[in-house]
Amino acid sequence: MFNFPLSFVESLLAEDLPLDDVTCRLLGLDDQKGETRALARDSMVVAGVGVATSLFRVAGAEATALVKDGQTLSPGQPILLATGPAEALHAAYKIAQNVLEYAGGVASRARLMVEKAKAVAEVEVLVTRKNFPGAKRLSLAAALAGGAQVHRTGLSDSILIFAEHREFIGGVAGLARLLPALAKKTPEKKIAVEVANLEEAKLVAQAGADIVQCEKFAESDLKATVLEVRAINPKIKIVAAGGVNGDNAAAVAATGVDGLVTTWPFFGKPKDVKMEFKAI
Amino acid sequence: MFNFPLSFVESLLAEDLPLDDVTCRLLGLDDQKGETRALARDSMVVAGVGVATSLFRVAGAEATALVKDGQTLSPGQPILLATGPAEALHAAYKIAQNVLEYAGGVASRARLMVEKAKAVAEVEVLVTRKNFPGAKRLSLAAALAGGAQVHRTGLSDSILIFAEHREFIGGVAGLARLLPALAKKTPEKKIAVEVANLEEAKLVAQAGADIVQCEKFAESDLKATVLEVRAINPKIKIVAAGGVNGDNAAAVAATGVDGLVTTWPFFGKPKDVKMEFKAI
Amino acid sequence: MFNFPLSFVESLLAEDLPLDDVTCRLLGLDDQKGETRALARDSMVVAGVGVATSLFRVAGAEATALVKDGQTLSPGQPILLATGPAEALHAAYKIAQNVLEYAGGVASRARLMVEKAKAVAEVEVLVTRKNFPGAKRLSLAAALAGGAQVHRTGLSDSILIFAEHREFIGGVAGLARLLPALAKKTPEKKIAVEVANLEEAKLVAQAGADIVQCEKFAESDLKATVLEVRAINPKIKIVAAGGVNGDNAAAVAATGVDGLVTTWPFFGKPKDVKMEFKAI
Amino acid sequence: MFNFPLSFVESLLAEDLPLDDVTCRLLGLDDQKGETRALARDSMVVAGVGVATSLFRVAGAEATALVKDGQTLSPGQPILLATGPAEALHAAYKIAQNVLEYAGGVASRARLMVEKAKAVAEVEVLVTRKNFPGAKRLSLAAALAGGAQVHRTGLSDSILIFAEHREFIGGVAGLARLLPALAKKTPEKKIAVEVANLEEAKLVAQAGADIVQCEKFAESDLKATVLEVRAINPKIKIVAAGGVNGDNAAAVAATGVDGLVTTWPFFGKPKDVKMEFKAI
Amino acid sequence: MFNFPLSFVESLLAEDLPLDDVTCRLLGLDDQKGETRALARDSMVVAGVGVATSLFRVAGAEATALVKDGQTLSPGQPILLATGPAEALHAAYKIAQNVLEYAGGVASRARLMVEKAKAVAEVEVLVTRKNFPGAKRLSLAAALAGGAQVHRTGLSDSILIFAEHREFIGGVAGLARLLPALAKKTPEKKIAVEVANLEEAKLVAQAGADIVQCEKFAESDLKATVLEVRAINPKIKIVAAGGVNGDNAAAVAATGVDGLVTTWPFFGKPKDVKMEFKAI
Amino acid sequence: MFNFPLSFVESLLAEDLPLDDVTCRLLGLDDQKGETRALARDSMVVAGVGVATSLFRVAGAEATALVKDGQTLSPGQPILLATGPAEALHAAYKIAQNVLEYAGGVASRARLMVEKAKAVAEVEVLVTRKNFPGAKRLSLAAALAGGAQVHRTGLSDSILIFAEHREFIGGVAGLARLLPALAKKTPEKKIAVEVANLEEAKLVAQAGADIVQCEKFAESDLKATVLEVRAINPKIKIVAAGGVNGDNAAAVAATGVDGLVTTWPFFGKPKDVKMEFKAI
Repeated sequence: MFNFPLSFVESLLAEDLPLDDVTCRLLGLDDQKGETRALARDSMVVAGVGVATSLFRVAGAEATALVKDGQTLSPGQPILLATGPAEALHAAYKIAQNVLEYAGGVASRARLMVEKAKAVAEVEVLVTRKNFPGAKRLSLAAALAGGAQVHRTGLSDSILIFAEHREFIGGVAGLARLLPALAKKTPEKKIAVEVANLEEAKLVAQAGADIVQCEKFAESDLKATVLEVRAINPKIKIVAAGGVNGDNAAAVAATGVDGLVTTWPFFGKPKDVKMEFKAI
Repeated sequence: MFNFPLSFVESLLAEDLPLDDVTCRLLGLDDQKGETRALARDSMVVAGVGVATSLFRVAGAEATALVKDGQTLSPGQPILLATGPAEALHAAYKIAQNVLEYAGGVASRARLMVEKAKAVAEVEVLVTRKNFPGAKRLSLAAALAGGAQVHRTGLSDSILIFAEHREFIGGVAGLARLLPALAKKTPEKKIAVEVANLEEAKLVAQAGADIVQCEKFAESDLKATVLEVRAINPKIKIVAAGGVNGDNAAAVAATGVDGLVTTWPFFGKPKDVKMEFKAI
Repeated sequence: MFNFPLSFVESLLAEDLPLDDVTCRLLGLDDQKGETRALARDSMVVAGVGVATSLFRVAGAEATALVKDGQTLSPGQPILLATGPAEALHAAYKIAQNVLEYAGGVASRARLMVEKAKAVAEVEVLVTRKNFPGAKRLSLAAALAGGAQVHRTGLSDSILIFAEHREFIGGVAGLARLLPALAKKTPEKKIAVEVANLEEAKLVAQAGADIVQCEKFAESDLKATVLEVRAINPKIKIVAAGGVNGDNAAAVAATGVDGLVTTWPFFGKPKDVKMEFKAI
Repeated sequence: MFNFPLSFVESLLAEDLPLDDVTCRLLGLDDQKGETRALARDSMVVAGVGVATSLFRVAGAEATALVKDGQTLSPGQPILLATGPAEALHAAYKIAQNVLEYAGGVASRARLMVEKAKAVAEVEVLVTRKNFPGAKRLSLAAALAGGAQVHRTGLSDSILIFAEHREFIGGVAGLARLLPALAKKTPEKKIAVEVANLEEAKLVAQAGADIVQCEKFAESDLKATVLEVRAINPKIKIVAAGGVNGDNAAAVAATGVDGLVTTWPFFGKPKDVKMEFKAI
Repeated sequence: MFNFPLSFVESLLAEDLPLDDVTCRLLGLDDQKGETRALARDSMVVAGVGVATSLFRVAGAEATALVKDGQTLSPGQPILLATGPAEALHAAYKIAQNVLEYAGGVASRARLMVEKAKAVAEVEVLVTRKNFPGAKRLSLAAALAGGAQVHRTGLSDSILIFAEHREFIGGVAGLARLLPALAKKTPEKKIAVEVANLEEAKLVAQAGADIVQCEKFAESDLKATVLEVRAINPKIKIVAAGGVNGDNAAAVAATGVDGLVTTWPFFGKPKDVKMEFKAI
Repeated sequence: MFNFPLSFVESLLAEDLPLDDVTCRLLGLDDQKGETRALARDSMVVAGVGVATSLFRVAGAEATALVKDGQTLSPGQPILLATGPAEALHAAYKIAQNVLEYAGGVASRARLMVEKAKAVAEVEVLVTRKNFPGAKRLSLAAALAGGAQVHRTGLSDSILIFAEHREFIGGVAGLARLLPALAKKTPEKKIAVEVANLEEAKLVAQAGADIVQCEKFAESDLKATVLEVRAINPKIKIVAAGGVNGDNAAAVAATGVDGLVTTWPFFGKPKDVKMEFKAI
């Protein structure tokens, strides 16, 4: 279950409607009843459906989800139906549309990568923590709806040692000396190490890393790394990071890595969602 | 002045570091001193510099901005310098980088549209309220840094009458009857009306709209609208909306409209920013 | 629709009931059922009805609004009815009463000004951003219920150039040089300029201001300004500000201005609302 | 010490400046330096000085308080001095002025009542919890600056038994039976009972109430109550509530009560504070 | 009524479930229905029932409380029943269990002290403000459920003068001079003074303190203080503080004091609560 | 780095000082200067030092930490020194003391378990997510200061499959069928399974679990499990949970498990910290 607190939904609404809907007030729409229907304009993987329906409810309308996050929709397929006072529908529909469009974009891109990658190998697409700043909740939920897994949500849930850390501990060699003790200290978490080349990959694999994260490796280097590092430790996980995206997902997956670490689904064009209004 | 409260900066940090930086703690980095320098990898319009430096300060480092929001940077140009305990630098640098990259992307796309549009006409680029849900503050600040203006921040600052409103008041004809009274009621705000074709544009212009927003008009239709609507009211403002982006900015600007209403700068690839670490 | 998030209603309750209702607990009132009825003591324009009923609901009672914001009530007229556990009624009734009394005061004063002004001219009452600090939401909603419009909600929704700005740009003359470029940059917003006398008013009207805000003008000066400034630009809006209140609303309205900018409705005596309790 | 968290100060600023100061941005004021001085226009008791200076600091200026809360200022006396970038001064000065004006109004009215009351008797002015909804912090701080004491901050800090409670426990007679047990249960708090007439006052005094709160008593009845209730319990405190204000403070104080419970200082006209700008 | 805002309940859930329940998602539990029943493992005084049921509701399940805060439960006695989607039950049950266990521990320890103390004397158990930092709401509610009263919730609800204050006002002698004026200023609140020995107790009693708080007195000294201080003022309240706990509650109560001021219920072993799951 | 946002520190202060420090105000302490020194009364592992010093700063005093989290202090050893206005010291010292006492208790109990366990084996103490509800931040930081590691911070950072999950997937047998696919899906996280007996432990080890969590095993059963499960997978981690505490830490550690999963450090008696005041 992804936790979307009411306070989160209210904050989305307040971002768009901090005080008063001036237009509706001036037009005197409050007493009339209407119906709003969200529909996919294009084929898309839908996400954010629960948030979108909650937005209508928070604004004072009734809303029913017609699909579930993660479904693939065909053009014209309805997503949700809301009914209620015209002013409630107007307060919520644009931000609800916005949620469905951005989340749908993220989910659809995640799905594209997942499908391309899994078509050639048993491999996971793992989204990074580099979402649009301040938008982690919806970004991760959408990527999960698309079939991705989460690489890490931030600094508090996992161990990933970058070159930037090694600057302070004597480089890869220094790390190699520290790794066995680290592994003892943290029996329930895997230790991941980002490496810049095959040599580093082998060193950290020999030192006991659980995961080798290959940063901006050419595909040929990835293949070599998979072979040589697995020879050192058959249980080690190898993930590719840095520039992995919808274009090269299949090629990178074909190298034999266990995961594609990517930020790519988080940005790009939102999916088009139509919001149809009807007075009732 | 764009208001970036400390609580906002803290919330960005907490999104990435809700509790503990596990990696730094296990590596025992806390006592060492280091320096982090952010640099543009590519040419970019920079934005979010104040937020990025605040992030380092909130994490316990010192930070100095070396450029100002809105400057165009050449590849390799330094953006900020932070010094302090290694753990403070590690707590802040990735989210600071993320802020600079996403905000830089938005600002650079806004600048691109502004430059293309202004090369052919005196026209403004106006960003909509359809930013990534939950990310309005940084999105708007970045678009402004790029030279765009804000179309509307949400429902509480302006009047914009959509077809979705007219569904409840008898369509364009109904609106035309209401407009004079609306204008009286709100002497300090302009009344904008979204229209779907030239005929609607003329009707609302005759009825007294201050702004005609042309939704998804072909460029030839925009030109005709500019001519005919200006003939009705020379002071009216005409803005183009719906699918206006970096590709067609010049062409749309050339139609003679007063503004390009666009969501396009808000999404797309972040700019690459490098974060260099040095133990000191 | 005015947005009153649940978190806002909860914060009002928590201001009065941060932890425990000591009195009710000691008296052991929790299990008994009761009914609370809110009634206007005097004639009043009611506002805050939605917030007041929400307060009872948040506290655990059922509540029904019997009137709508903006109605004029006669003495003794019921406003809302709440039923539920005695402790829920006691938790909510005083803060609900307080909301109705303060909001009713603001709405009634706004209405008074609106009626006095509109009796003599087609003119709008426009409330400023100078509400009691921290109380913008309820203050604006109440003023709107009274029939006022909003002058500006703050610094982010409109352009208003004060003498305090002109201190940095070469005074009125400096501003006059800047105005045409400003107007280009912001096609969707009107540009308002506060002026201290007729001469300034004419200068900024000639330079292209959309709104001239006359600060503390004598009524005779307002009349002269209306004449002379309209002669420069018949479409310009002229608003009077500074000391406009319930006493002089008609006189100021009679000068021919388009709007009365006023803070007066925001303060003053709350309206009396009676809360009747009955055990049931 | 009154607790004004930074988050509170930021929320006041954000109420007025949620995003961008459009006017300053368009005028390009950011780089210039200026100075803002707040001065009392009329004689006033000042309050909110700490909050006002914090507002300037939060906005990016330097600010120094020149007086302390509770001082009586003569017209023209400076309150604070702020220096910094023009855009920081403009972001803060109006909300800072607003804080000083409203808080100054509350403090001055509280002081007026305190002076009138203390001129005739040793008696305290006690402000109720009925401040403008959502504005308790500043309202109480201002009343304290004026020399008032706090009657109760809400439901969680004190015991006050109203007729609305007694509806559920058998009226005054029922309460009289309960009072001795209540007093045992709560040895550290006084028990206050609101009464509607002398008879009720005597009954609850006999039953052991620590405080008798006389609601809307005529002054003659207050005098009688003071005499008769003190005869029952010389240590009992008698406070007058309901309609106690700046006009009748002396008369009510002269009845011999221990305290004047009042909401009156919380509302009314703000004090005028001038904000002078100078480019430097 | 103890105020447990929805935002508080959401914050407890978010502490445990900031984003996604990884385990449930991977297991694909979302569509199945289940039932969770909370039961007391041992004899306990139950508290936090409302919060625990709310947690299930916030997570998307239905929940019914089967007991009320403050009841004594026998082992195996059911506390609440929740039904709904497996993922909703899993999201809420552990934090709900945690609430019931910690609150039950506090309530049970409070009850133990209350029962021991009241078995020997008419005396109240009064819990201090020294709860686990950040956990005042649940701690106080649980102590109240156990039958304790609240000594003070913090610095804003009561007057308690420590030696740390007297360091600045000339010690006990200085305080004795100030007390009569303080008592005048604050007619609705009792003045409590913490003392370190019998001599101090007598001094402050003579000076007019309403409450003498004896810090870390031997029981024999408490008895002497009760006698001698009551001789000075029969209405004065004497409370014992410092090291008062479940072991010595009866002995301290037997000294004749009016209250036992204690932090002891706030910490210690939580009560065991079983959460039974059943697929339905 | 453990993230303690300013907003967190402010919320701790506001819990104790929501509005006004009544005692200090009445005593008129504001202008005097003082010094507060925190000292360990007993031997203790210190934690919360940064939070405690921040509390003094937020209240308006200067504060210097004299020790670092995790140090073992001898009785009388100073922890921090604060200087400033008496009212600032009084606003902060009790909540600062409370932080040091509770955090010191948690850290000291964690250290005790760590020392006992590590005296007999290379094993980690791993604290659960069952802290006092609402107090995760300080609880985890203190446990880390004591030398423990974190078992899991909540549901969003790790995978742990309980019997309560298996109720919906066909028990241990059902899980065994699912495990290989789960492991593929989540290459960067370990999969932990809680088991109730040796047989279940072997089944899940054979199925590929990374961690076997033995719930309430007798020590003899733990030993057998370690032997038999390691025979199945030498790299598997075995942790003991359920009733592991300061008394049995050594005995459980001696069974050969990799970690002791425990809630025990989170509750129990706070450490005594003395706060010495001096007027200066």
